[in-house]
Amino acid sequence: MSIARLASRMAYSALRAEKRPLAVAGSKSFHTWTSLRQSSASPSTSGDNSSVFTSSNPPMAFPCIDKLESRTMSLDGGPEPSYDKVVTGYETFNYSSPFLLDHGGILPNFDIAYETWGKLNEKRDNAILIHTGLSGSSHAKSHIKNTKPGWWENFIGPGAYIDTNKFFVICTNVIGGCYGSTGPSSIDSADGERYATRFPILTVWDMVRAQFRLLDSLGIEKLHASVGASMGGMQSLAAAALYPDRVNRLISISACARSHPYSIALRHTQRQVLMADPNWNKGFYYKGVPPHIGMKLAREIATISYRSGPEWELRFGRKRAQENQSPALCPDFLIETYLDHQGERFCLQYDANSLLYVSKAMDMFDMSNSAVTKLRTQRTKNEPVLRRLTERQNSLDDHNEYKTFAEACRYETGNKSALEQHEETTPEASKTDGKKVLSTLATSDPVTQDLIEGMTRIKMPALVLGVQSDILFPVWQQKEIAECLRAAGNKNVTYYELDSMYGHDTFLIDGVSVGGAVKGHLELLDTSK
Amino acid sequence: MSIARLASRMAYSALRAEKRPLAVAGSKSFHTWTSLRQSSASPSTSGDNSSVFTSSNPPMAFPCIDKLESRTMSLDGGPEPSYDKVVTGYETFNYSSPFLLDHGGILPNFDIAYETWGKLNEKRDNAILIHTGLSGSSHAKSHIKNTKPGWWENFIGPGAYIDTNKFFVICTNVIGGCYGSTGPSSIDSADGERYATRFPILTVWDMVRAQFRLLDSLGIEKLHASVGASMGGMQSLAAAALYPDRVNRLISISACARSHPYSIALRHTQRQVLMADPNWNKGFYYKGVPPHIGMKLAREIATISYRSGPEWELRFGRKRAQENQSPALCPDFLIETYLDHQGERFCLQYDANSLLYVSKAMDMFDMSNSAVTKLRTQRTKNEPVLRRLTERQNSLDDHNEYKTFAEACRYETGNKSALEQHEETTPEASKTDGKKVLSTLATSDPVTQDLIEGMTRIKMPALVLGVQSDILFPVWQQKEIAECLRAAGNKNVTYYELDSMYGHDTFLIDGVSVGGAVKGHLELLDTSK
Repeated sequence: MSIARLASRMAYSALRAEKRPLAVAGSKSFHTWTSLRQSSASPSTSGDNSSVFTSSNPPMAFPCIDKLESRTMSLDGGPEPSYDKVVTGYETFNYSSPFLLDHGGILPNFDIAYETWGKLNEKRDNAILIHTGLSGSSHAKSHIKNTKPGWWENFIGPGAYIDTNKFFVICTNVIGGCYGSTGPSSIDSADGERYATRFPILTVWDMVRAQFRLLDSLGIEKLHASVGASMGGMQSLAAAALYPDRVNRLISISACARSHPYSIALRHTQRQVLMADPNWNKGFYYKGVPPHIGMKLAREIATISYRSGPEWELRFGRKRAQENQSPALCPDFLIETYLDHQGERFCLQYDANSLLYVSKAMDMFDMSNSAVTKLRTQRTKNEPVLRRLTERQNSLDDHNEYKTFAEACRYETGNKSALEQHEETTPEASKTDGKKVLSTLATSDPVTQDLIEGMTRIKMPALVLGVQSDILFPVWQQKEIAECLRAAGNKNVTYYELDSMYGHDTFLIDGVSVGGAVKGHLELLDTSK
Repeated sequence: MSIARLASRMAYSALRAEKRPLAVAGSKSFHTWTSLRQSSASPSTSGDNSSVFTSSNPPMAFPCIDKLESRTMSLDGGPEPSYDKVVTGYETFNYSSPFLLDHGGILPNFDIAYETWGKLNEKRDNAILIHTGLSGSSHAKSHIKNTKPGWWENFIGPGAYIDTNKFFVICTNVIGGCYGSTGPSSIDSADGERYATRFPILTVWDMVRAQFRLLDSLGIEKLHASVGASMGGMQSLAAAALYPDRVNRLISISACARSHPYSIALRHTQRQVLMADPNWNKGFYYKGVPPHIGMKLAREIATISYRSGPEWELRFGRKRAQENQSPALCPDFLIETYLDHQGERFCLQYDANSLLYVSKAMDMFDMSNSAVTKLRTQRTKNEPVLRRLTERQNSLDDHNEYKTFAEACRYETGNKSALEQHEETTPEASKTDGKKVLSTLATSDPVTQDLIEGMTRIKMPALVLGVQSDILFPVWQQKEIAECLRAAGNKNVTYYELDSMYGHDTFLIDGVSVGGAVKGHLELLDTSK
């Protein structure tokens, strides 16, 4: 017997020594891995690859991989996602006309799931629209139709930060989502099949335009405030820029005015991991097994980007899930089992294609004048489609509810045409103001200039909140929003930087830190009137 | 025809309007997606799922997924990894005795690939050991046997930051690696098969112990300095703690004294993504197709953790790979194609199992007294295995080169036994000093106390460098090293914080920032003599 083989046997014997009597040193009858394993299987060595081991050390077990494999076996293999039932008790607004998206796609119609709290006052001027993050539902707070706690449960309510004694609060699921609003998992009325990846590319601007169709249906001409965190903060800014006359106050928390490459990179890896799951099947998985593994892994990466080091340091430190087990390549430290659990949970709660489309919309978000102008040019080019559709429709069947193109687009501009609106977007005066302030900021960076020019319409009081431990939307991006707004001539910009340790998710966790500023901004006396 | 279907056809017509004459509005002969696609295929709509589209919008194409799929088809499908040929021209040190690892595994023997530059002086006291990061090879600099640039090419050389006119520089590939040192892709001499995941769990301490066997063979009793960045910085600290009498100076760059949960999380996702690739096959892929996709995705995540926002902001900004193409879910922004390329390249250059074992070793790194004591207890328990192995071996064949247990372990302590060494590790005096300083630091955090106690043996001059834009090993971890060393009684700790924008990879990219401090520390006059 070689030294190596001898070493291997004896090493393993010693490792198992506590559990069974050790072979007498010098004895010629060595245990095989098999017999040792059978009599003293331990979590770290109970692999199933082979029943006889001849190696220097025992092979490792991979329970996490076994678990993954069982997930992909069949539809009977485990709980299937029921994300369309994750949220219930919402209202549905149906927009039954074709809806043009920024990149030329058309939704023949769309639904928006929404929930409301508080009461719209007689003047109809106390409405607050809350915009959600990537995977948020309309269920921001519990109510009689859905008593489960919402994602901002304690934030909203009578006397709370967003006070339902004072305000009529609305929250929607974004288009592209999967909690009741039209998204990739919805039926395409063109052929009765799910959209899947036949869903058109959509933008944050598209989401906001759709939300304002809902506001129209509710008879709300002006919002008291547009409020959002993360992607919700992007929507909040987009609403203010798109409908400056319909938004009285703006709150943007942990968001940005343009996605920077680092956050694109973080979302990119999530999409790539998801799309690499063969069960994703280029998006056509609705009749088969969904890409559980891809979703789980994507969520683990996302979770890292949502939280910060300091919190995990206190919460998990270097604790292991099972202190007395051998180190393993499967989840081992407590932080790993936490991530694993987060991933497991999420893959049953959110649609994979929604993740792709909505995260892509975040990547593309850019308020710079050049970017907005490009989209506008594209929309102008595609507008005749809607117009022809309308004409065509009118001649084919006298469909009364069918809106004309002009109607479909009127909310961009009040009653002005899109072209008129465009000319108003960057009036010379604002441009000049912007540039003047820019020069006082002593920056001639064309990227910053471009961004300032894209934000000239946002003149209402604005609150910008950033969290120092956020790596996904770092504070420099919050400062950028605030400084560009100021440079563009906004005299009412408040900027707060929080030292919360919860990173990007602070708005979901640390209500106390975020809430005071929000309440203060919402309830400030309006000195302009 | 339904409105929806009508809308879908016309939308698509309009999108293609620039390329072909549009169907006359009102005409009853609509183009099908098929005919439109055939005549005006665009990159964003050339999917292969079906030849007829009935949906509102055309399905998307996924060239990135097609590419991935072709990767997993067969061994003939593309270039196979040749990481064992990525690095050539190194020397090999063979340690032919069984080698006990911290967690009880045994290597029957091991190789270490190493390269050297400069000359060992007569006193044999001018050697510098350079420790590599996770996937580093021994090829830190070009030389006659391998003229390719090394990973620290300009850092090392005559007159350079690490001056080969003055120093004899050694760099090794760590055990667990795949560039010539024994790792999971090596042959297990017990049965002539590759170790794969039968390779034992190893620690940073194990890597360092193996390196010091090499130093013995080179006749180097004392190092002028132990130098490393990232995992190399961990090794550098480990060498100083394990062999305080054999390390004269210490340099730790962008490393840590204990892995924190955030960095564990970042490595966890890489491992999970890799292990989820079915081709990984629980580590037994050497006879089949390696887990290219898993490795590629893992590297993309890793790349994010290695770089920082500011650099990418300047380098990529929001530039797209093809400005005039429609937005896509496959890599689209320039940052995405960059990550994709980094992933593609790496999966052909590094062994997947090495990534798992070496990254796991990084997770487990913890210099705290309690952690070190636990490992020590474990080693003591496993030492009889080596002893019995030796006895057994001696009786079986009179193998002269076989080292006794005492020999195999002597370098832990000079010539003292492991047990004697353990008692020296935390002498009461140092402990008290540590606590005294701790109290002046106004912290009673037991985690910090534990760490200080684990670092009491490191009394040689130490340079600790951190980079403010590093998210993987953030500056607070560098400060922790420096402050704990000081609190443990080290009077010669220099701490520099760099504002480089390259994040964790600064040591590889920004030689100027890092190099001056390194050179200064290496060439400081030794005032203690």
